[in-house]
Amino acid sequence: MAEAVPGTTDEVTEVANVEENVDTGPVHIPASIDIADLQNRLLGTWADIRRSSRELAARPDMQRIEGQPMEEHRARVFEQLGKLVENGQVLRAFPKALGGGDDAGGNIAGFEELVLADPSLQIKSGVQWGLFGAAVLHLGTQKHHEKFLPGIMTLEVPGAFAMTEIGHGSDVASIGTTATYDEATQEFVINTPFKGAWKEFLGNAARDGIAATVFAQLITKGVNHGVHCFYVPIRDENGDFLPGVGGEDDGLKGGLNGIDNGRLHFTDVRIPRENLLNRYGDVAEDGTYSSPIASPGRRFFTMLGTLVQGRVSLDGAATTASALALTIAIQYGDQRRQFNAASESDEEVLLDYQRHQRRLLPRLAQTYAQTFAHDKLLTQFDDVFSGRRDSDDDRQDLETLAAALKPLSTWHALDTLQECREACGGAGFMNANRFTSLRADLDVYVTFEGDNNVLLQLVAKRLLSDYSSKFRKADAGALARYVVSQAADRAYHGSGLRTLAQTLGDFGSTARSVGQLRDTAVQRELLTDRVETMIETIGQRLRPASKMSKVDAAELFNSQQNELIEAARAHGELLQWEAFTEELEKVTHDETKKVLTWLRDLFGLSLIERHLEWYLMNGRLSSQRAQAVGAYINRLVARLRPHALSLVKAFGFEEAHLRAPIATSGEYERQEEARAYYVALRESGEAPVDEKTLRAREKAAKKKS
Amino acid sequence: MAEAVPGTTDEVTEVANVEENVDTGPVHIPASIDIADLQNRLLGTWADIRRSSRELAARPDMQRIEGQPMEEHRARVFEQLGKLVENGQVLRAFPKALGGGDDAGGNIAGFEELVLADPSLQIKSGVQWGLFGAAVLHLGTQKHHEKFLPGIMTLEVPGAFAMTEIGHGSDVASIGTTATYDEATQEFVINTPFKGAWKEFLGNAARDGIAATVFAQLITKGVNHGVHCFYVPIRDENGDFLPGVGGEDDGLKGGLNGIDNGRLHFTDVRIPRENLLNRYGDVAEDGTYSSPIASPGRRFFTMLGTLVQGRVSLDGAATTASALALTIAIQYGDQRRQFNAASESDEEVLLDYQRHQRRLLPRLAQTYAQTFAHDKLLTQFDDVFSGRRDSDDDRQDLETLAAALKPLSTWHALDTLQECREACGGAGFMNANRFTSLRADLDVYVTFEGDNNVLLQLVAKRLLSDYSSKFRKADAGALARYVVSQAADRAYHGSGLRTLAQTLGDFGSTARSVGQLRDTAVQRELLTDRVETMIETIGQRLRPASKMSKVDAAELFNSQQNELIEAARAHGELLQWEAFTEELEKVTHDETKKVLTWLRDLFGLSLIERHLEWYLMNGRLSSQRAQAVGAYINRLVARLRPHALSLVKAFGFEEAHLRAPIATSGEYERQEEARAYYVALRESGEAPVDEKTLRAREKAAKKKS
Repeated sequence: MAEAVPGTTDEVTEVANVEENVDTGPVHIPASIDIADLQNRLLGTWADIRRSSRELAARPDMQRIEGQPMEEHRARVFEQLGKLVENGQVLRAFPKALGGGDDAGGNIAGFEELVLADPSLQIKSGVQWGLFGAAVLHLGTQKHHEKFLPGIMTLEVPGAFAMTEIGHGSDVASIGTTATYDEATQEFVINTPFKGAWKEFLGNAARDGIAATVFAQLITKGVNHGVHCFYVPIRDENGDFLPGVGGEDDGLKGGLNGIDNGRLHFTDVRIPRENLLNRYGDVAEDGTYSSPIASPGRRFFTMLGTLVQGRVSLDGAATTASALALTIAIQYGDQRRQFNAASESDEEVLLDYQRHQRRLLPRLAQTYAQTFAHDKLLTQFDDVFSGRRDSDDDRQDLETLAAALKPLSTWHALDTLQECREACGGAGFMNANRFTSLRADLDVYVTFEGDNNVLLQLVAKRLLSDYSSKFRKADAGALARYVVSQAADRAYHGSGLRTLAQTLGDFGSTARSVGQLRDTAVQRELLTDRVETMIETIGQRLRPASKMSKVDAAELFNSQQNELIEAARAHGELLQWEAFTEELEKVTHDETKKVLTWLRDLFGLSLIERHLEWYLMNGRLSSQRAQAVGAYINRLVARLRPHALSLVKAFGFEEAHLRAPIATSGEYERQEEARAYYVALRESGEAPVDEKTLRAREKAAKKKS
Repeated sequence: MAEAVPGTTDEVTEVANVEENVDTGPVHIPASIDIADLQNRLLGTWADIRRSSRELAARPDMQRIEGQPMEEHRARVFEQLGKLVENGQVLRAFPKALGGGDDAGGNIAGFEELVLADPSLQIKSGVQWGLFGAAVLHLGTQKHHEKFLPGIMTLEVPGAFAMTEIGHGSDVASIGTTATYDEATQEFVINTPFKGAWKEFLGNAARDGIAATVFAQLITKGVNHGVHCFYVPIRDENGDFLPGVGGEDDGLKGGLNGIDNGRLHFTDVRIPRENLLNRYGDVAEDGTYSSPIASPGRRFFTMLGTLVQGRVSLDGAATTASALALTIAIQYGDQRRQFNAASESDEEVLLDYQRHQRRLLPRLAQTYAQTFAHDKLLTQFDDVFSGRRDSDDDRQDLETLAAALKPLSTWHALDTLQECREACGGAGFMNANRFTSLRADLDVYVTFEGDNNVLLQLVAKRLLSDYSSKFRKADAGALARYVVSQAADRAYHGSGLRTLAQTLGDFGSTARSVGQLRDTAVQRELLTDRVETMIETIGQRLRPASKMSKVDAAELFNSQQNELIEAARAHGELLQWEAFTEELEKVTHDETKKVLTWLRDLFGLSLIERHLEWYLMNGRLSSQRAQAVGAYINRLVARLRPHALSLVKAFGFEEAHLRAPIATSGEYERQEEARAYYVALRESGEAPVDEKTLRAREKAAKKKS
């Protein structure tokens, strides 16, 4: 377990003794930034709710006990869920008539912050109220609300959300479970026809759930009307499975072990006709099927679309976790000195090293961008779910935006947690310092609630279909420009297309000098142009598909899959950048604006650096300009370094949220103690002489003689 | 926990129905590759020892029980260590006279494979015999071997390797612990002067260790002779700390919880003079210091250099873990069908999707390269430690090679384990399927035994110092070429410089056509040229440093740190590519050679793609050629896809090593069952009609009427 590095000391003397560091103690915050203002911006539209939820998360009884065996962890989280009910905040999304708050957006905002207490608590409450409860709320009607929601809200009825099957992860339409209507008894018969149709990975299924919202193929009068959702009791008052219901415990997972994931299967389980959650499709007593949505395809997507909140909340929780990790790592990097405190002059703290800045500050910039983008996503979510703006287009835009942002932020969380853990060395690997535990828990965020790669593919297809359906005859450049500007604008401004044509026109000249990389318009052009061009290129490559056989078309499509997903990622990055820029424009405090502009520039330039080969290959940047990107990033991280601590302080986490020994002043105090020891030793006159010094003296003496 | 993806089904119909897949069952292995030959190549120089160690790793009693609480896991691993002693294989490195095998290389080869049983077992045995025991072996002399090694070898004396301190991770020369010689009693007094000097992260320290090899500043007659190693008993027969010794348990870590890491501190602990491990520095009864190595700096590095085996073995173990993960993920990806088995024609298996190929196959290529590069590293290690070739230069080359390869392979392991876990979706997150557990354990490999970033910086400095010291007056191009070709050649061939000048001369013309990216010489030129140019550029930028103040020079150096580390990475990548290419040249079987050439090309082109912006910015590739890189990679992954299963089978893992439910034929069998169900349903005439089909029929009927 040792970290010896032969060769280190001599090698590093070059780096040593850089500056007479003034001892400012563990907190190096320049007064220049208006941290309070920044904090309000970061907390966003639902700042008060977030603060209130963070108070909950700061309570030790709501927090995780690390290293707890799985069963104890499960029991603790279940108990904590009860405390959430007492506290009442988690019920905001439910109808006022039933004691909720009819507040969809605020509910998610508060829910996200629970990740600070224990991601298992966050996700388990998400299972109970955000999936199981939300299915009843959004797919059921008045009678279901009145009958089922009270028990769900009080946790009297813990429930599982039984959609995913072993044989089908992301492909919900193909699930094998059937719900066949029996006119004779006016019941649905729920059945699992084969092992691949077992419901899988369901929270609350292994231990706590006594009911489930089960997705199944609705069959009546010999017709399969596609996937619908049914309310199915699964356990009796003793916790035993009801007749016909069976299941297994998923056991230990890579993380989130406070949640009792498991499998369920059904053998001719009979439920009353009324247990069909019938908002989007109903079966009359005589077995006649009816639906307010004629198209089976649209009906299916409408039903699943009501469950977008899972994705929305993961975007927020992942961003919060990234912010927490960066706060810990940056506070430590601002104290920890590498390469000794034994000599007169102190060595640099980690964060003064360029590589360290390069590792942490661009990730901080992205976390800021995500925070602002998430607030926009959540606002849009609230618009739709409050009914203020919930047309089909609004819903589809919301889904596309969530599908674009969730993959980026959840991958970013894993990447950031890992980089922070490594940047803190062995100390970062200690469970007490949070990174490894959070990383293990957040791992699954990248594949559940929609696999990241699948989601990005959906985004890309949306962009492509806009492109191909609306502009089949227009010239290619115009289309592509339109598609993207529209997607970005519709997502954030809802005001039709932003005219990029002009700035794009004189792009060649405006971007000529290095300094202009700092220019907002230039960054926007570079980022926008990339999305546009990628979509346009793929669109053109896919054009022949319409005249091909299905087999050939699929093969052609597959040949573009990787590129397609990259295009969607570029789109998501642009959305994040736009959100950061929009927030930046609102800042009035001069110093704050200056520093935030650097941070936004760092984000923009980091994106451009990440895809530099594209800009070069496509003639968007000259070699010289491309080289300026990296050089300018190096300047930006150096400029931002003195503000790093302020920028993480602005996230507003308290010690009860950080809970990491390395984020305290311990390291600083140890250095002070060591320093005092060496000073005292020198003053005592008893300090040993270094052999090296001795030999140097001997040499000098020999030369003289 | 659900993975619903609204919009999935309709969107994906384009991708569906691609091919009439012939049911070849779960194993799609074309007969074309000589798997046995390939397996021998992958197992390398110590194939028999690896096989024998894998037999050990296949024993259930040597394997990890997942989810075991920390204390039980610790106890189990300690017990397993006893079984390793019984088995005898782990003692190969020790002297024959004491029952060992005097086999340094074979010892490491066997040791690495233990990662298949439990990484905690691997690392704990590394602590006992590879660090604690190796310190006595390499830093001690005959009397220490006779006195201490037998107890260490039999595990009668479990011990800690007490080098790292809280205040100093990678900077061993600056440790604060002192060992002051007392002439009156002929003892050393070991002392921890302040909290920052506590020994930290030591395996065997929290529970099992009864002795430790303690690194401390040796002070005698008022002179500090620098860091030396001392044998210090720490616990009595009851497991209590001896007087003056204290410590703490590090508690839960992000992984490797079968190892009892902890802290130690010493308050005037007295040990006999003879307990100084005195191979490289001794103190006479009267307190006179002597050493066979005059320079304190060289002495220090020589001492630490004997401990390079930790790094060497991590390179191997990380590569083995990557191979295991890819075997599991590729076997699953070859069976798992995404987007349904409910219709007549099966959907594609995951591995037929381009994105999936892109995710797994380049990582497979890199794992092959690492496997071959590691065998070369281990051979060089064995040359040095057997005494066959152990000049100062040989030792330095070995250290540089280990420092270049260990960072790349340990990072690759984390990246690969994660990508495999994601590529298997929710199933990948289940602990039973190995990825998450291995990832958690291997996490710390990237920062212990030398932090990866620090190691790469050392490599870069070595390249730079060769550059600046040997060629101060020659022309820049020649130097740079020399530095790298020499580093690569010395590392692998020990035969002076390889002449690249000619091929480099006509590079502009030879690399003109797309097809030539497949050319070995072109790949070599591109990869070599990059290392050369980067080092040369940085070297030139750093030139003014020699005439600067220390402060300014350090600042200049810091401004190049990021680039410097990237240059070292490029060097490591080149070494891996060279190793793959060298092995490839030995393959005689035609089909194997063809497939392996594709795989090597995929590795080379993936490296070039990863750094494409560099090749473009520096005019090494035209835009057109650069675009061909990605296109060619797409062709390569498609070509390699049918051989993917053969290529992982060649790693030679058995089910007892894989131990992952998803790597069995379970998925295939579930699909067969589902398929049979639907066939029977159709044949029964009772299959429900899809509402969609019904509506289409109605529409058609209306049109007719």
